[in-house]
Amino acid sequence: MLRFLTAGESHGRALIGIIEGLPSNVNIDTDYINRDLYRRKNVFGRSERMKMEEDRVKILSGIRDGKTTGAPIAIMIENKDYRPELFSNSEKIYNPRPGHADLVGLLKYNLDDIRDVIERASARETAIRTAIGSIAKLFLNNFDIRVYSRVVNIGGIKDEDEFLIDEEYIKKVETSPVRCGNKEIEEKMMKLIIQASEEGDTLGGIFEVLVAGLPVGLGSYVHYDRRINSRIGAAILSIPGVKGVEFGKGFELSSIPGSSAVDEIGYSEEKGYFRRTNNMGGIEGGITNRENLVIRAVMKPIPTLRKSVQTVNVATKEKVLSRYERSDITGVPAASVIAESVVAWEIACEFLDKFSGDSFEDVENAYMNYIKRVSKY
Amino acid sequence: MLRFLTAGESHGRALIGIIEGLPSNVNIDTDYINRDLYRRKNVFGRSERMKMEEDRVKILSGIRDGKTTGAPIAIMIENKDYRPELFSNSEKIYNPRPGHADLVGLLKYNLDDIRDVIERASARETAIRTAIGSIAKLFLNNFDIRVYSRVVNIGGIKDEDEFLIDEEYIKKVETSPVRCGNKEIEEKMMKLIIQASEEGDTLGGIFEVLVAGLPVGLGSYVHYDRRINSRIGAAILSIPGVKGVEFGKGFELSSIPGSSAVDEIGYSEEKGYFRRTNNMGGIEGGITNRENLVIRAVMKPIPTLRKSVQTVNVATKEKVLSRYERSDITGVPAASVIAESVVAWEIACEFLDKFSGDSFEDVENAYMNYIKRVSKY
Amino acid sequence: MLRFLTAGESHGRALIGIIEGLPSNVNIDTDYINRDLYRRKNVFGRSERMKMEEDRVKILSGIRDGKTTGAPIAIMIENKDYRPELFSNSEKIYNPRPGHADLVGLLKYNLDDIRDVIERASARETAIRTAIGSIAKLFLNNFDIRVYSRVVNIGGIKDEDEFLIDEEYIKKVETSPVRCGNKEIEEKMMKLIIQASEEGDTLGGIFEVLVAGLPVGLGSYVHYDRRINSRIGAAILSIPGVKGVEFGKGFELSSIPGSSAVDEIGYSEEKGYFRRTNNMGGIEGGITNRENLVIRAVMKPIPTLRKSVQTVNVATKEKVLSRYERSDITGVPAASVIAESVVAWEIACEFLDKFSGDSFEDVENAYMNYIKRVSKY
Amino acid sequence: MLRFLTAGESHGRALIGIIEGLPSNVNIDTDYINRDLYRRKNVFGRSERMKMEEDRVKILSGIRDGKTTGAPIAIMIENKDYRPELFSNSEKIYNPRPGHADLVGLLKYNLDDIRDVIERASARETAIRTAIGSIAKLFLNNFDIRVYSRVVNIGGIKDEDEFLIDEEYIKKVETSPVRCGNKEIEEKMMKLIIQASEEGDTLGGIFEVLVAGLPVGLGSYVHYDRRINSRIGAAILSIPGVKGVEFGKGFELSSIPGSSAVDEIGYSEEKGYFRRTNNMGGIEGGITNRENLVIRAVMKPIPTLRKSVQTVNVATKEKVLSRYERSDITGVPAASVIAESVVAWEIACEFLDKFSGDSFEDVENAYMNYIKRVSKY
Repeated sequence: MLRFLTAGESHGRALIGIIEGLPSNVNIDTDYINRDLYRRKNVFGRSERMKMEEDRVKILSGIRDGKTTGAPIAIMIENKDYRPELFSNSEKIYNPRPGHADLVGLLKYNLDDIRDVIERASARETAIRTAIGSIAKLFLNNFDIRVYSRVVNIGGIKDEDEFLIDEEYIKKVETSPVRCGNKEIEEKMMKLIIQASEEGDTLGGIFEVLVAGLPVGLGSYVHYDRRINSRIGAAILSIPGVKGVEFGKGFELSSIPGSSAVDEIGYSEEKGYFRRTNNMGGIEGGITNRENLVIRAVMKPIPTLRKSVQTVNVATKEKVLSRYERSDITGVPAASVIAESVVAWEIACEFLDKFSGDSFEDVENAYMNYIKRVSKY
Repeated sequence: MLRFLTAGESHGRALIGIIEGLPSNVNIDTDYINRDLYRRKNVFGRSERMKMEEDRVKILSGIRDGKTTGAPIAIMIENKDYRPELFSNSEKIYNPRPGHADLVGLLKYNLDDIRDVIERASARETAIRTAIGSIAKLFLNNFDIRVYSRVVNIGGIKDEDEFLIDEEYIKKVETSPVRCGNKEIEEKMMKLIIQASEEGDTLGGIFEVLVAGLPVGLGSYVHYDRRINSRIGAAILSIPGVKGVEFGKGFELSSIPGSSAVDEIGYSEEKGYFRRTNNMGGIEGGITNRENLVIRAVMKPIPTLRKSVQTVNVATKEKVLSRYERSDITGVPAASVIAESVVAWEIACEFLDKFSGDSFEDVENAYMNYIKRVSKY
Repeated sequence: MLRFLTAGESHGRALIGIIEGLPSNVNIDTDYINRDLYRRKNVFGRSERMKMEEDRVKILSGIRDGKTTGAPIAIMIENKDYRPELFSNSEKIYNPRPGHADLVGLLKYNLDDIRDVIERASARETAIRTAIGSIAKLFLNNFDIRVYSRVVNIGGIKDEDEFLIDEEYIKKVETSPVRCGNKEIEEKMMKLIIQASEEGDTLGGIFEVLVAGLPVGLGSYVHYDRRINSRIGAAILSIPGVKGVEFGKGFELSSIPGSSAVDEIGYSEEKGYFRRTNNMGGIEGGITNRENLVIRAVMKPIPTLRKSVQTVNVATKEKVLSRYERSDITGVPAASVIAESVVAWEIACEFLDKFSGDSFEDVENAYMNYIKRVSKY
Repeated sequence: MLRFLTAGESHGRALIGIIEGLPSNVNIDTDYINRDLYRRKNVFGRSERMKMEEDRVKILSGIRDGKTTGAPIAIMIENKDYRPELFSNSEKIYNPRPGHADLVGLLKYNLDDIRDVIERASARETAIRTAIGSIAKLFLNNFDIRVYSRVVNIGGIKDEDEFLIDEEYIKKVETSPVRCGNKEIEEKMMKLIIQASEEGDTLGGIFEVLVAGLPVGLGSYVHYDRRINSRIGAAILSIPGVKGVEFGKGFELSSIPGSSAVDEIGYSEEKGYFRRTNNMGGIEGGITNRENLVIRAVMKPIPTLRKSVQTVNVATKEKVLSRYERSDITGVPAASVIAESVVAWEIACEFLDKFSGDSFEDVENAYMNYIKRVSKY
């Protein structure tokens, strides 16, 4: 069973993660992880801090000569913007920002300084989760399972193009500052971001994650908590700011009759069983069906605005304007990269539940044997 | 820690559930549970089977004189439509229905009779989950936490009214055959269902769950897997046919600037802290903020159609038309009741994580003390 | 991941268990399970109740045509001694028996009738756990993993013979009323039991569980909670009345120098790696080493005595003599059978963690491949 | 729910731990943790390495101004004996030491260098677990729950004195190089250790852990996996080298009749309910009964001997003598300190399951209220 814990504050010394349960003999390429950290960081609409942070992962244990040994893997991302002064006698913060954990955190944890909340509630934590998921991706790559993402909506500007899984399209997305595959739409999105920035406002949007190369059979209908959409949905919803998630045609299915929605089953010698359409986004009965897994999620506009927003000083109970902390204009492009990681992690978990083994070789055998079995069905 | 397991096949002897972790001295009213089972069953658009099933819960253990003792609670719903003949030498089923677990289940579990898949993959299982969640509701009622639901879209017919938490509106929903609070919309929905039925088609839709009376502080930002939206999202996505879930304004937030989306914080002597709007659906930073929890989910049209749908005979690999099994025209109204239960369960889990105790009295003390603490903040 | 829950009271309608996580296509022989229930029941020194109970398992779900389908398995053992009158207006019990959960249960769960405690705290619950573990044994039998047990001490009468894994010795144990392989010792044990019975006293003892046929590699040293001895130790200690557990030479190792204790490693073409002795009981570094797994555990004398024992009436706080409830003279022989089951369960869990798969065929492939890999090492 | 993960190799850069689930506002005294690390290290019979290691804990997150914030706590112990050269092109090790994970680890994880096994299987890992448990102790101290330990047997030299919980006796234990409370026995133990050292041999023994100040009601009989002895037993058995664990009179109970073993119940105005003896070691029905929790465990002699031990070279399959790695003569005194920590952790888990709360103040309220309730019973 794969599991991890993370720790670390936004302006603390470092973010730390421990991963337990990977088999031995998995190749781990640190550059690959750092590339994902870079992809998360280097998008349009982010704050100054991102320029400051280097975000390079340091591996502290569990890997020898570039391979896992079976032992827990500890990783660390040091914060360049480490501010020890904030953790001793800094001035207390009393004005909670609406839309953040500021006020609920104070009340829940019986604290008297919002600093204690925001250091951990900060989305900075997603850096270490990106790295953890990147390790999951490295594992899945061995089985040609690939996780992609793009942005399909920022502030209402929609990209309705199909998500093509070919080199050219992926390259467009990866070189787009807003991770959008359509040049025209991209420009509109960027304009809107600049405009929002000028107005002291922020923007939400929708991103899409697509997983190609999955085998049939991940997840299960036999018990409610084993459905793969549950697991992936939970992971996506754990990304700060995400307020909704859908699979395949998702909410559109409310308005499409069954006869148009259903993905008919076909069969051919070369491909085996397939679906003639993929409205269900690769999942039937809580189980992957070998079609591409398609997930879309909405991220709310970041609630930290330069525009004035009303709140209450918790010490005096007076109406005040919310303080402004350095913040992104939109988190959607970054969220799409983070989402790749959290999805990869859940798939790796399901994969290792199904094809368990203590060494990479054992896992590979179990996988190959299964693929052979189902392809003969 | 609260947990449960369920077992049982659609045409087996019975559905069974075991609940472990409820404190002692919780009053359990069997009629209340049966009422929820009736609410799930007795909606428009369901199949003939529902008329056949009585769906009354039988308590086998854990309750004495109407109260929990702390011991595990075993419950059972006997199937009136028990068909022992299906479990011995019945004819094998080879034509998988698209959109169901039929084919993926065969492949995953290495079976040769679709009967082995569909007996467990059937949505019949949601009856026992409704009962389990109904017990969670009974527990939450003691703290004036109430879970409501309604249908807001069937097949594209939308109800855009606000979800009012007053007796009159709730009564309208509860007496509506499609669980819609607006008479006019209700009629349109029913017409569409009848039309779909005549055409051999099916319909999806959207339902809404609202939880009132929650304390501030359920869920957490400190670790990714403790966000209450993750937990609730996973539960909702585990209802068969659900393809998306959103909180508060959900997917609409992609198109609303931060300055309009943010729920400003207010304070008054009587109410304490409150939000001036509730676009976030009662959750900030993965934590309840004392506003109503608002969840919406989309259910796909049921893929069992009388209209012809193409599939493949797994024995011969020939193209065939999908067989028709008795089925609902739409599952949306029933799903809204099931969703109440699964949401209630997750909230009871969070509640007991936060206000643990072996007896109801201990839990009540922890809760009251906390409410006093935060109200003085 | 394999898991189960149990429910049911001692004089309630039935004991119920749900098992989730077994692969499909495992043969389940109900007679085998019933035989284990009989072995648990039909030993010397037990109370009258055991003669009354039939203890036959009823399978409610998850099995079709004698095979698992992958769905949860619900099983039930009906109580012949069902006493519905105890669950309504029966007279309350106020005198806690020392050594039982009577008093601690009252206090913990804030109850006012000891009946509410003892119905669940009763060792009657081990009947359903025996059945659950028996299913685990059936699974393990496919891989020639066999779980045996015997009694080596009752009330101080020790059997110091070696535990031979041959048909003749096993037969001796299985036909012995106290599950002792040595006729002479058996007689002494039985005499002591009769004597204790006459004196209104009870006896403890030590039983041994031995697992033959295990592969190398179950359990792990990489994280503290994955050591197989931890897992098995916890299971054994969960049998009511067990106060200690040891592996291999166990407590004797406190007095043996390392040079005598160490199990030297040998190698031969036919056997591969082996140990020249088995002082460690088949475990090194928290991992099975292919030698027999040897576990011993002590069960305290049952604290329900006909002899007078002092306690306190919880209503009046007066000193009183403990009431006598029908009880066994010794639970050791029964406990050895229960222990087989709980050990088999934990091994099946570890086995399926390591050689996972959704169907029996997938598990078998993973196992065979691993055995081939390690045998070539 | 409290949880932790650890990572780190014996000669890697550092040992790392992440703790998740502690409430906010718990005072954390780093000196206290370091004192426990010192107590683990600074005992008689340990190897040279212990002199080299400083073992000071570094807190990386989760604590501000000496208090927990509710966020995960990351801690680190840097290895002075860090040897980066071992993790790149060092010479491979082919001769497995019997009694260690060397051979089973190679086979399980499909490795070809024993170095990959021993770096993680090393008991060095217990340093970080000691620190983690020390944090649990700090938490429990607030409720006057105290965890003590001593050594009662080394290599057969037994200390049969009672474990007195008074300042003087504890001081004797804490100043004894072998953690024995009896000067005469201590001397004999030390002589035996010196003798074993001269002979190239090693020694096992027995240690005892005692927890005073526990409330009634931790653990439960309602489900098998909630018995506190199971949980504590598993933790003790996870300490490398431990081969058995017992509670109260433990294995002696095999030979004592029920009438002598039973702990009669008494009651007095000042003390409430109490037991007249404590043969059961503070646990009835899997639940603490307010008497001292008494645990004893056996540790095998360390299998790394200077004396020659036979093994097999895994590359050549030749008989060889086991290589000698720097090692302790006996690990028993150190294990007793480690055991305090692992027991404290499990008790803190049970405590927080029962008296949950997000802040220390909430937990304290729940605890005080419960104590009041049961004291009035």
